[in-house]
Amino acid sequence: MNYDLTLNLILEEINVAAHQINGESINRFIDDILNADKIFVTGVGRVMLSLQAFVKRLNHLGITAYCVGDITEPAITEKDLLIVGSGSGCSILPVAIAEKAKEYNAKVIHIGSNPHGSMAEIADYMVRIPVRTRLYLEDETDSGQPMTSLFEQSLLVFCDTIAMMIIEKKKLNMDELWMYHANLE
Amino acid sequence: MNYDLTLNLILEEINVAAHQINGESINRFIDDILNADKIFVTGVGRVMLSLQAFVKRLNHLGITAYCVGDITEPAITEKDLLIVGSGSGCSILPVAIAEKAKEYNAKVIHIGSNPHGSMAEIADYMVRIPVRTRLYLEDETDSGQPMTSLFEQSLLVFCDTIAMMIIEKKKLNMDELWMYHANLE
Amino acid sequence: MNYDLTLNLILEEINVAAHQINGESINRFIDDILNADKIFVTGVGRVMLSLQAFVKRLNHLGITAYCVGDITEPAITEKDLLIVGSGSGCSILPVAIAEKAKEYNAKVIHIGSNPHGSMAEIADYMVRIPVRTRLYLEDETDSGQPMTSLFEQSLLVFCDTIAMMIIEKKKLNMDELWMYHANLE
Amino acid sequence: MNYDLTLNLILEEINVAAHQINGESINRFIDDILNADKIFVTGVGRVMLSLQAFVKRLNHLGITAYCVGDITEPAITEKDLLIVGSGSGCSILPVAIAEKAKEYNAKVIHIGSNPHGSMAEIADYMVRIPVRTRLYLEDETDSGQPMTSLFEQSLLVFCDTIAMMIIEKKKLNMDELWMYHANLE
Repeated sequence: MNYDLTLNLILEEINVAAHQINGESINRFIDDILNADKIFVTGVGRVMLSLQAFVKRLNHLGITAYCVGDITEPAITEKDLLIVGSGSGCSILPVAIAEKAKEYNAKVIHIGSNPHGSMAEIADYMVRIPVRTRLYLEDETDSGQPMTSLFEQSLLVFCDTIAMMIIEKKKLNMDELWMYHANLE
Repeated sequence: MNYDLTLNLILEEINVAAHQINGESINRFIDDILNADKIFVTGVGRVMLSLQAFVKRLNHLGITAYCVGDITEPAITEKDLLIVGSGSGCSILPVAIAEKAKEYNAKVIHIGSNPHGSMAEIADYMVRIPVRTRLYLEDETDSGQPMTSLFEQSLLVFCDTIAMMIIEKKKLNMDELWMYHANLE
Repeated sequence: MNYDLTLNLILEEINVAAHQINGESINRFIDDILNADKIFVTGVGRVMLSLQAFVKRLNHLGITAYCVGDITEPAITEKDLLIVGSGSGCSILPVAIAEKAKEYNAKVIHIGSNPHGSMAEIADYMVRIPVRTRLYLEDETDSGQPMTSLFEQSLLVFCDTIAMMIIEKKKLNMDELWMYHANLE
Repeated sequence: MNYDLTLNLILEEINVAAHQINGESINRFIDDILNADKIFVTGVGRVMLSLQAFVKRLNHLGITAYCVGDITEPAITEKDLLIVGSGSGCSILPVAIAEKAKEYNAKVIHIGSNPHGSMAEIADYMVRIPVRTRLYLEDETDSGQPMTSLFEQSLLVFCDTIAMMIIEKKKLNMDELWMYHANLE
């Protein structure tokens, strides 16, 4: 398959998956982000990279957000929100961190594909990106991409969509966002 | 703008930008990846996150790749390839690293938007994602997204497209890629 | 307390703690490092920083070592070694990773202070740095330093001592170690 | 050389190097940390690891500190302090970052060994750890350790000494420091 066809396949898969996310869970997700004192995110591998991109953008919007494991990670409290990215809902480290966050009465949101994993019992609710991958085959959207690529891509695009909606909701001026941006690069 | 419209805006922007990449530079990029002893990537902020996702995937394909700054980063040699991600082609750290790589006679490829930045004189060639952002306004594709989001998203999708083309070219079995995947998560 | 007195306190605490490590466990530790195909390390916070410094040095000595969570982390196998740094032996993430490593039949060594934590049942053996800290008070060496500083410092110095012993054992020329060192800095 | 002799060599080298740091520069360093709005640190390799340990501890003391390159790194201003760790004072990335920080009128302190590197012209002043290593041979303290180990170790111990002096100066209760400590581990 040549470049253009492969690119179309990927973009169409993201398009289908990201449009299937439940609207009610999206609104709840935005409200919880805006109401939290601090946001924490956790995940593994490329899923974590998509969430790190979200954390960077949230800080640009004036929203305090951290990655679990960051050098500067503070203590979580009951006023905070933990976002767990895990397609399967079973990755051991995110699950262990989510359980710990519940001990401190923080709110926990699971962004994933599989609604039947360990996260189902821990999270307050799930934002489901319905991706059928080579890992957990019971889902709706079948992917022609390797491993869990589609989940990782959809997660990035979903989070950037949320960021734009927050910019509009908070009436932020996009040209002024740079004031929070790192300037030692 | 609601979720679906915002999502459509983002995906359409990626679609336009990623399809405009020059085909010859794409083929050369793939050949150079397959011919290099080791791949190194560098960039800053969210651009680096997209490149880290690429490094992770390349390793799954049996291709040795590192991020500059990794704990396990080895020495670069003249048989290696450095991929520099920088929309403006002017970010000081990537430029400094690229200059260093040229001292060791490594090949340097710049993935960026602005063809007139400092990288133009350092890189062997450029893979251009033509994104007009709020930073460097002379380019073709105007973006309604904050900061350089479109470049970062297009970079991830471009790299994942390249990864799929390499899988096909090397006749890899996608279900066997997990053997290189981290298993302590 | 002025600078010199504070410095003396810290160095004397490291001196006492690091000299109490059991000699047999030290020899076994060196042998296991030299016999492993690949080394993995895990820990949290400043303990992980000390182990990252060890991973960097091991790679300089031509020994393949990774940090769990690295972008380039490969799969662990039964020929590999996982080193878990945890003073208390109870940190949830390192413990979860150690359990996972045992599923793949990798060897697991615990470097810690508290011999009665969860790691006691998982690890093949313990390299004990006997540090009595404000966290787990049953140990021999009482520390005047904040939190678990003494464990983190002793861990770094211990690992650098091991690195020098390996250099001697492998008859490496210290001036030639730079060939493995990152050169894009 | 056996374990105990090797350990003694390392600890004695740190002892000599860390005690030679100029007292006036130490006092000025502490004052600048306490007077800054935010602290930033930069360095490469194992030097950066020692500085990351310092950033973690400073945050535990209620002092806002970041590593350059962190996901959550904010913009630097003229009220902030950049600490550059570089034995040679010539590492290209730290030097480039220091120059950038001066453009924003931030204060820049160089912790290093070589007083004649590029940092000499950029930094407001130097905290000198006089280490003679295999890299820059004009210094006083000759090291039997590989590469720049002694500088990295001395840097960690120096920073931890400073942290204890700040605890005393700010009359902090060491048992209450945990309130700032990450609790999702």
